[in-house]
Parts: sequence; structure tokens; C-alpha cells
Amino acid sequence: MKFSSKVLQCQFSPIRKFYPYTVKAEKQGKKIYYMNIGQPDIKTPPEFFDAIHNFCDPVLEYAPSAGIPDLIRAVRNYYRNIGVGIKSDDILITNGGSEALLFTMMAILDEGDEVIIPEPYYPSYSTFVAATGASVVPIPTTAEEGYHYADRARIEAKITPRTRAILITNPGNPTGTVLSLDELRMILDVAIQHQLFVVADEVYREFIYNDSPMSSIGIFEDGAEHVVIIDSVSKRFSACGARVGALITRNRELREHIMKFCQARLSVPTLDQLGAIALYSVGPEYFATVREEYRARRDIVYQKLQQMEGVVCGEPQGAFYVTCRLPVSDAEQFQIWLLTEFDDNGETLMFAPAKSFYATPGKGLSEIRISYVLNRSALERSMEILEKALLAYKAHQE
Amino acid sequence: MKFSSKVLQCQFSPIRKFYPYTVKAEKQGKKIYYMNIGQPDIKTPPEFFDAIHNFCDPVLEYAPSAGIPDLIRAVRNYYRNIGVGIKSDDILITNGGSEALLFTMMAILDEGDEVIIPEPYYPSYSTFVAATGASVVPIPTTAEEGYHYADRARIEAKITPRTRAILITNPGNPTGTVLSLDELRMILDVAIQHQLFVVADEVYREFIYNDSPMSSIGIFEDGAEHVVIIDSVSKRFSACGARVGALITRNRELREHIMKFCQARLSVPTLDQLGAIALYSVGPEYFATVREEYRARRDIVYQKLQQMEGVVCGEPQGAFYVTCRLPVSDAEQFQIWLLTEFDDNGETLMFAPAKSFYATPGKGLSEIRISYVLNRSALERSMEILEKALLAYKAHQE
Repeated sequence: MKFSSKVLQCQFSPIRKFYPYTVKAEKQGKKIYYMNIGQPDIKTPPEFFDAIHNFCDPVLEYAPSAGIPDLIRAVRNYYRNIGVGIKSDDILITNGGSEALLFTMMAILDEGDEVIIPEPYYPSYSTFVAATGASVVPIPTTAEEGYHYADRARIEAKITPRTRAILITNPGNPTGTVLSLDELRMILDVAIQHQLFVVADEVYREFIYNDSPMSSIGIFEDGAEHVVIIDSVSKRFSACGARVGALITRNRELREHIMKFCQARLSVPTLDQLGAIALYSVGPEYFATVREEYRARRDIVYQKLQQMEGVVCGEPQGAFYVTCRLPVSDAEQFQIWLLTEFDDNGETLMFAPAKSFYATPGKGLSEIRISYVLNRSALERSMEILEKALLAYKAHQE
Repeated sequence: MKFSSKVLQCQFSPIRKFYPYTVKAEKQGKKIYYMNIGQPDIKTPPEFFDAIHNFCDPVLEYAPSAGIPDLIRAVRNYYRNIGVGIKSDDILITNGGSEALLFTMMAILDEGDEVIIPEPYYPSYSTFVAATGASVVPIPTTAEEGYHYADRARIEAKITPRTRAILITNPGNPTGTVLSLDELRMILDVAIQHQLFVVADEVYREFIYNDSPMSSIGIFEDGAEHVVIIDSVSKRFSACGARVGALITRNRELREHIMKFCQARLSVPTLDQLGAIALYSVGPEYFATVREEYRARRDIVYQKLQQMEGVVCGEPQGAFYVTCRLPVSDAEQFQIWLLTEFDDNGETLMFAPAKSFYATPGKGLSEIRISYVLNRSALERSMEILEKALLAYKAHQE
């Protein structure tokens, strides 16, 4: 039997190849600080669990394919509060932001089509694009420039007759870069001029640490038919296991097409949606507390990285990631060495080598992504281990 | 902006077009007996909710992409109990059976490829196939033959160089037909001989009312690499809103490819998986009780249909559907008439016109699918309404 040409283009999770090494390291009694994942340690608001405990129907039924109306209203109200004037009809509830991304790509991409994505980018994007037979056209960035890409000429240079969309993550995963309102406007203008979609993954919207106001590309009224917002409760409310996302677009035709996929997969989990409704009742003090915690963590990681010889990174402004270049030629080899040969007092660490965040062959080999989803003392210790490890690795290689 | 050629081939849910009529009928005070949906009224076992209430971690984290190991073990043990000797590695937990179907099609189909499906079939199948750019090649059946299709010559007549898979539903939705072990063996032999996959949607496995033992195409050891089983807790445990399905295959290469999609979408709902683990502890008496209830309902519907002049159907052997031909030229027009012009004592009914269960243009126009997911007295009353309506409709048309 043959497999589809599309699945053959898809890649495994970049983390997968390190799994045997982590198992072995832990068997040997090593403690590993896991800084490779995007799973926050912040408590899920208890309102979520309370709502689920209050469910007392005898039958757990399918929810409507577009989502439970009360959840759609909660999402609509959340957006209105940040200045995005959407209607309930503009919202489809999805199985996480992931399904919103997959369905968007399935609705707009044919084989040979192209999606422009600044690199480094979240690796699942390339699977969602490749699954349709289309390909990622990367906008290159550098660690020295803080992975900045929002330059009109740089974006337009990548547009071809096969370009269908520009996919941005704001705040950025894995880079932590945050786009200004002017930059968002410019990207939308490019999309309008060239008749493209802008797919804006804004799942980290609440996590901004500079003085930029929290924002969304959805605030612009003109050109709204070009905009698709990918959203999720996963990061916003530390409820990753709930699989409740949303696709938001004022392009009625696109929404109708995607509704066909929503109908075919029937519904999103009923209980998780009821929990998500309650999450949207959580007040601004919740976000302020979480933001301050992440900001403190960001500061620890960034300050320590700056003090390490040969490490290059800009100050991340949002999300909970920092990507940096290490003074090593191959970060994957360094990671394997950390798991197999190195320890400091029985402890070592795991980050995400950045090679798989790039589409351009040979790029990102020296770079890593660090997730600051551990508590502050664990982060202090992790940075200490990284510093010692870099020195030991240098000595080891000489 | 353009949309993908694939989404343009996908259809909306067939129910959608009747929605405005049902809203209007209910506004007028009509009571509608809904026999158009596959949402059972059977209670979800309380073990499901208890397991979720017992969850007390502070953070609702992502589950592993392949599924929670305890759930995978529960599914494996369930299969071993019915004689299917699979290993844990052969199982991927999915967002309902729907995701298992979509990912399978994405992994094996390219544009122009073909999937053989007996018609009438579950309409979402055509969306999952069309979403990849492939097409459905139907095996025609007739109401007179009880929608029987398991004939080697009839299946082989549909095989072309572009055929990649045979997709079967057993027990059948919408027909209620059940395949014998010999028939399953024959279909597998065809797949082996022609190097095809057999995708077997077995989500109604527990609901068989003749003397056939409950079975699975997974019991055959040889040719196991051709077999993909689609499974779900939705119907088995009346937990449709949980969105916990499974893809089971001993084809390691296929599983690895599909794992790429599982990793990209991260995980299946954590709490629903915990609930599903508890569901698999439910004993055989649960299934026996539910089966007897459905059998009694099936008997009511089938006996009444047989007594109606001009109605053609075979005795359905499984699932909770019966498809039949009515003495009307267009069942969709009859359905609209039922909602807009007819009532019996203020009551009317809704079924699923079968046209959209067919790929062949012009087929199924006079047919409907009835779901017997209402209690017995509601079913008695519904059949009474149908009989009166058919007489009134005949008079109305003369």
C-alpha cells in the first residue's frame, strides 16, 4: 500500500528523537530540568473544574458543531473588551488552536501553494501546511536582530503567484517577539494589496512584558475579510489539556467552508467547553498575576543568558519562550551530550534545539528555544547548569 | 482570495437545510419527534463522571499525543476480550472516531485517488475523502436486498489502479446491516489481493440484534497490515460529547505517519480520556441491558414499517438505524411538507432523507434513515405519525 505524498512531507515532533536519551538519563538517576515544552506550571483557575463538577445531565451529548452558544458569546465578549468588534457568527469553536490551524490550511491551500511564515516558527505549522500539499516559504530572521521580521520589503520579497497566506504568531513562539500595532497594520496592508489571508496565531496574547498594549490584528475594520485569528484557552488559562480553541474570521465564505469540516467532525468536547465558559469569567487580576510571574521568569532567563559568553539573543517581549544562539556548532549534539555525558551534581537540562523551527536547511543549528514554564528557583538553577555545561562542552571539544 | 479545490468539493451536513423549517415549526408550537440524529438517549455510565470528579491536579496538562497510557491499555484489554490480539503500540487515541478517519485519509490519499464505500454511507465519509482531493467510488445496494453489498464480484468491479482503500461500517450506519465473519474475511482477502487498506468503522460493534457474535475485522492475523479499525466511546458508552476515539492498526508504517498528525495537534482532551478509562471498566451487563433496549426499539420500528403500504426495508441487524424506501418520489420534499404543512394532533417528525448518504446522483431520493434513539413510546407514536403522514401526503399529491 502507498502513503500520501503529503504525509511523506510531514515531520515528526523534533522532541521525539531525544526521548530515548531522557529515559536513559532518568534511569541513571539524573534529574532533568525540562525547558523544552510549552506546558505551563501555572494553576488552571478552579472555575474550570467547578463548572465541570456542576454538570449533571444524565447523557453526555454532542455539542453543536460550531461550539456551545454560551462559549461563543463568552469569546465574543472577551474580544469586544480588547476592541475587536466581532459577532458570534464570526467564531467557530475548535479542538484546540491546532484544529483551527489545520482546518484553515485545508480550506485555503492546494498542492503547490505557499504560506509565508517568519522563521524560526512553531514546528506544527509545517505539518499543517504540508498535510495539504502546500509548502512553507520562510522569512529569514537572525538572533542578532532579535528575530525581527516585520519589514514590508522582506515580506513582499517572498510573495509569488502561489502565495495564499502569511502566517504570524504574535506574541511569537519560539522567539518571544511582539509586533507593534503599526507592524500588524503593515502586514494586513500587504495581505490586502496581494489578496492574501493573514493567519494570526494569537494564543499568547495575554503574555506581553514590554509597554505595548495587548492587541490583536482583529482590531482593524478594513481588510477584516483577510484575517483569520487562531485562539485557544490552553495558554491563556493554563488549560492545555482542555482542547478548546477558536477560529475567528469575518470572512463569511471562509467560515462557511470550514464549517463543513466542523460538521464532519461533529463537535468539540462538551465538558471542556462548559469549563471554558467559566474560564472567561476570570477577572483581569488573574492575568496580571500570571503576567508578573512570567515577566519575573523572563527576566531571570534573559539576564543569565546575557551573561554567558558567546550566547546571542534579544530581549523577548512576550509569550514564555526565548530563542538564542549558543556558542556550539550543533545544538542537537549539545543536547544529547547534556543527557548522556554531562551532569552538575546529578542534574542536567533539556531545551528544544531550534533546527526544526526552521524551513531553511542548515539554519538554526546553533540555536535553542527555552520555555520558562518552571518556577523561578528551578529557572535560576537551570541557567546555572547551562552556563557550566557550555564551559564544560567547550573544554570537552578542545 | 481563493479556497482550496478540495474544500469546494466538500458538502454541508445534510441536516442543515432543514434547520430553518424545524425552527419555524417549533415556533408554531408543533412538537417534532427527532429521528434524524445519532445521539442516543441512553444514560452515560456514572463511572465516567466519577472519574472526572476525582481529578485533583492543579494544572490541566496536555495528555501524550498517542493517548494516556492507561486508556490505551484499557482499549487493548477490551480488544483482547473480543479476540483481537493487538498491542498497546497498535493504538492511537483520537479526537473521536472522526479524527481517526480524517487522519487515515490524510495519510493514504492523494488527489485523484479513490476509496470504495458501499452506499448509502455516513455522509462525513465523503468530507474526509474529498478533503484530501480523492473521491468516493460507491458500491451500489438496494433497499430490496437489505442494502447488502458483501459480494466479492461487486466489490472487485469497483477497483481501479487509483483505489487505495475499502471503507466499511460494521454494523452499518445508515443501514443497520451486519457483516458475517465470512464476509469480513472475503473483504480482507480482496484488500490483500489488490494491496488496499480496509478501513473498518466499528463504532457500533456492541449493537447487534441477530445471532451473529459481536466481531471485528481485527481478529484475522494474516493481512493485519491492511486493516485500520476506527473506534470510539461515543456510541459504545453513550458518551458522544467526550470526543474520545481510537485508531487501531498493526501497520506500523501507517501508524508512524499518522503519529505525525497526532503530534502536530498535541493531544486529545485529558479529562475525557480519564473518564473513558473508567468507562472501559463497565461490565457486560451494561451492554446487555442497552442492547435489549435497542433491540426492542428496532422491533417496534421495523414491524411498523413493514405494515405501511409501499414501504420497503430489510430487517436491520445492528447499530440503531434503519434505512427504508418510502412511497414518495422525493423524501426531502416529504420532510419539508411534514414540517410545514402536516401535523397529527400538533405533532410531526423529522428523519434524515437519504439522498446525501449516496454518491451516485439521483439515488436514494425516496429513502430515509430513521434513528431509533427515542424511547419506545415515542417510537410507537412516531411510527403512527409516519403512517398517517404517508396517507395524507398521498392524498395531498393526488
